[in-house]
Amino acid sequence: MSAENTPSAAAPVSELELRRVAIDTWRENVAYLHRDCAVYRAEGFQALSKIEVRANGRRILATLNVVDDLSIVGCQELGLSEDAFAQLGVTNGHTVTVSQAEPPESMGALFRKISGERLEREDFHAIVRDIARHRYSKIELTAFVVACNRDELDREEVFFLSDAMVSIGQRLDWHEPRVVDKHCIGGIPGNRTSMLIVPIVAAHGMLCPKTSSRAITSPAGTADTMEVLANVELPLEQLADIVRDHRGCLAWGGTAQLSPADDVLISVERPLSIDSPGQMVASILSKKIAAGSTHLVLDIPIGPTAKVRSMPEAQRLRRLFEYVARRLQLSLDVVITDGRQPVGSGIGPVLEARDVMRILENDPRAPNDLRQKALRLAGRLIECDPDIRGGDGYAIARDILDSGRALARMRDIIAAQGGKDFDHNHPPLGPLSFEVLAPSSGVVAGIDNLQIARIARLAGAPKVQSAGVDLLCKLGDAVTAGEVLYRVYAGYPADLEFARQASDKVSAYRIGTADDLPRVFVEF
Amino acid sequence: MSAENTPSAAAPVSELELRRVAIDTWRENVAYLHRDCAVYRAEGFQALSKIEVRANGRRILATLNVVDDLSIVGCQELGLSEDAFAQLGVTNGHTVTVSQAEPPESMGALFRKISGERLEREDFHAIVRDIARHRYSKIELTAFVVACNRDELDREEVFFLSDAMVSIGQRLDWHEPRVVDKHCIGGIPGNRTSMLIVPIVAAHGMLCPKTSSRAITSPAGTADTMEVLANVELPLEQLADIVRDHRGCLAWGGTAQLSPADDVLISVERPLSIDSPGQMVASILSKKIAAGSTHLVLDIPIGPTAKVRSMPEAQRLRRLFEYVARRLQLSLDVVITDGRQPVGSGIGPVLEARDVMRILENDPRAPNDLRQKALRLAGRLIECDPDIRGGDGYAIARDILDSGRALARMRDIIAAQGGKDFDHNHPPLGPLSFEVLAPSSGVVAGIDNLQIARIARLAGAPKVQSAGVDLLCKLGDAVTAGEVLYRVYAGYPADLEFARQASDKVSAYRIGTADDLPRVFVEF
Repeated sequence: MSAENTPSAAAPVSELELRRVAIDTWRENVAYLHRDCAVYRAEGFQALSKIEVRANGRRILATLNVVDDLSIVGCQELGLSEDAFAQLGVTNGHTVTVSQAEPPESMGALFRKISGERLEREDFHAIVRDIARHRYSKIELTAFVVACNRDELDREEVFFLSDAMVSIGQRLDWHEPRVVDKHCIGGIPGNRTSMLIVPIVAAHGMLCPKTSSRAITSPAGTADTMEVLANVELPLEQLADIVRDHRGCLAWGGTAQLSPADDVLISVERPLSIDSPGQMVASILSKKIAAGSTHLVLDIPIGPTAKVRSMPEAQRLRRLFEYVARRLQLSLDVVITDGRQPVGSGIGPVLEARDVMRILENDPRAPNDLRQKALRLAGRLIECDPDIRGGDGYAIARDILDSGRALARMRDIIAAQGGKDFDHNHPPLGPLSFEVLAPSSGVVAGIDNLQIARIARLAGAPKVQSAGVDLLCKLGDAVTAGEVLYRVYAGYPADLEFARQASDKVSAYRIGTADDLPRVFVEF
Repeated sequence: MSAENTPSAAAPVSELELRRVAIDTWRENVAYLHRDCAVYRAEGFQALSKIEVRANGRRILATLNVVDDLSIVGCQELGLSEDAFAQLGVTNGHTVTVSQAEPPESMGALFRKISGERLEREDFHAIVRDIARHRYSKIELTAFVVACNRDELDREEVFFLSDAMVSIGQRLDWHEPRVVDKHCIGGIPGNRTSMLIVPIVAAHGMLCPKTSSRAITSPAGTADTMEVLANVELPLEQLADIVRDHRGCLAWGGTAQLSPADDVLISVERPLSIDSPGQMVASILSKKIAAGSTHLVLDIPIGPTAKVRSMPEAQRLRRLFEYVARRLQLSLDVVITDGRQPVGSGIGPVLEARDVMRILENDPRAPNDLRQKALRLAGRLIECDPDIRGGDGYAIARDILDSGRALARMRDIIAAQGGKDFDHNHPPLGPLSFEVLAPSSGVVAGIDNLQIARIARLAGAPKVQSAGVDLLCKLGDAVTAGEVLYRVYAGYPADLEFARQASDKVSAYRIGTADDLPRVFVEF
């Protein structure tokens, strides 16, 4: 059907010498070609084109930058930024071939999702595979995230997405009938129950290999806080050894390659503060399945400034979690909790590590709300043990904590993960600080989770471990005018200034009477 | 309310010496800081942070890359990529200050749109202002485009967006009561009526300062085709002189800074093939208002592979255009036309320029469908002249064309815009080509606009001016097996190969009987 009029239609072979360019472009592969490079001209590349670089049977995609300085890259060379160079994995001076990158295979499925169509299982698999292989540009990645935002995914699509995310990463198998885990959907500053629950249930003998995320939009995730006490970036083999020896661990899922697509998606969701039900369910459940969990207790806090603001909304989210969990064959127990205010006192990695250690040490200064919540959730997990009667879990958890067995187990886990020096009596807090005082006398009638989180993040948390907010009063406390409500710590003057401006602009505390307290009807 | 505990909370002044780094990052401002630079460490920047660079009262935003090579950037220096350096507009070695960039002002409005809220006039103004000032990252830009996709904008929001896009750019005032223009929503390859209509209506004495776009997803826009004949990137003053002298011009809107936000949005819409009704209306009408138009004839082609596929859809789009045009005080005449197949013979800049010049020259080889369509649309525009009776426009337009007055006017405009050598008898076509033959005898019963456009783009159009597709048969033509249906031209072997593979995979032509022809009921 096609009549040839040309001497040769073969694409030119485009060989160049690899050069490592000492520029750190962070997760964005960049290739540098000199403007006078014959390949650049012959192939009709443009700056910002995606090109494919091959060497030794490996291939990577990179965004092209065009260079006019021979000291950065010569005419026979292809430069690669640090990350791209490491990914290609060959030495300086190695021969590489380059070509215009073909668009990712799943582009058609992406375009259909953008125009509002329902996608099938194989579409989600193709998209997630391309994402995990870093074949999507920032633009394509963002388009996928926004097109799946809000209620754009139906519940079966959420299952397809979760399933695809599981299938693309490594999956752990602990060879035990029960592997338990607990997770919170987030949004409540200071809510570090995992660091208490893991040592409690592990001390009870249950297997609890906890992989946590870093903060996405919050001032600290469990991984950020645990990192104050120990190393959280563990190779899988070491993680398995620790879990075998101690029945638990507190590591970071990203390093363990458990859900590689999720980490890429988060790099876009974070700056857009996107956290839709579908993406939340897929992200959480895929990581749990990949980590080998069989039983999960899920904490959904509800309150005026929590992620979930009403009981009907909480119930809708619960049903979506339950539907997808069942399709993934995960046993799920959803607990709807009080999310009217931050949990514990400290917000930020060091401050939260301080609270956790005080609870484990049975220190009288420990925040009781965090202690109680952790005990109740640990109790629910313990009741997954078929030898435990329903309702007995809480008392067992409390006994493990009171007796110091939880502390001992935590110390073992910390040591196994490469413990760092930390003294909860002298936590290494940011050198700069300011205090916010009660403007009038009365009762603390409201604490804004979002505003507290914002102030803590502006102060530098979680990037600056020592930064954050320390809450000296909680809901229902009586205060007198001029009393300290909270103290903000920062590591850098500019951060302190940003935090102060935010704190001055919108008060995170509302002072009223006991009648003004928001009401919630939850289990705990 | 805020008690001070720190000696000084002022942000450190971060002065560095500016260095131009000869890397072309195309529209993405990049700043380079050495990892050992004191400012980098003190400010707690990260690779990919957005930083603000100030000098001489000007400020730009840039994405940070961290460098470990002192030959690229020293410890006291701040490097800027070519575009960023040009934008800041100070000399090498100048002192600059850097700081962490504050998020764009319109972030809150963007987040509200992402979560599905309706935005107000001031929200759109804030967003469009930030976009035009390049304060949005690729992620934020994509999120805005996808969140406004499909029917997410109601008609008043489309007006707000259009109005904001007008207000942010320059706006021309021609000091005449009638400034006419014509525009097509696109999607039909070869549809180059503007290059015929402008000289016809200008020869009639009407003011028609046509600013066109380059191709977004098509093989050629009017600006790309006009660029074969003359310069289209004209400074505003020169454009005004040409229009005063000749009553018309054919220039590129982007260069003229008429709708700076639109160009930035297109950089994201293009790779995602997004072309939603709201964005289409805002993009087209804002550019017309900015160019000073008072009367617009709008061409909406309809057909099985056109952008608009059914009459109800065309009517919905017509009403949206009419609503927004009225709010913008633009007189609008919408014409729904036959979009079942490409218009004219050539697809691609050089081939389309050939067709246009043959029509103007009254050459017998000229494609009659393009000629007829241009005459009818020109007639509609001429009827905006209050001295012309309704229905007389077509005959006037035909007389101007037949008499050679349109050709003379086109030659004047080409010369004024810096004419290039072009001979329509020997158009400089791509040196490589292949032909596609009829697989059987019959009647051409279907030509796929999308597939023809895809093949022409793969062949290199519009980047390679000489590349494209030349259609030798059109709908309704009788063909015999082995007869040439179309010929593909390319400039590079790889392009030819891509085009051939696409052409082999899916046929752009359907051969059947005269009864198989798709039907449309349109004006022309």
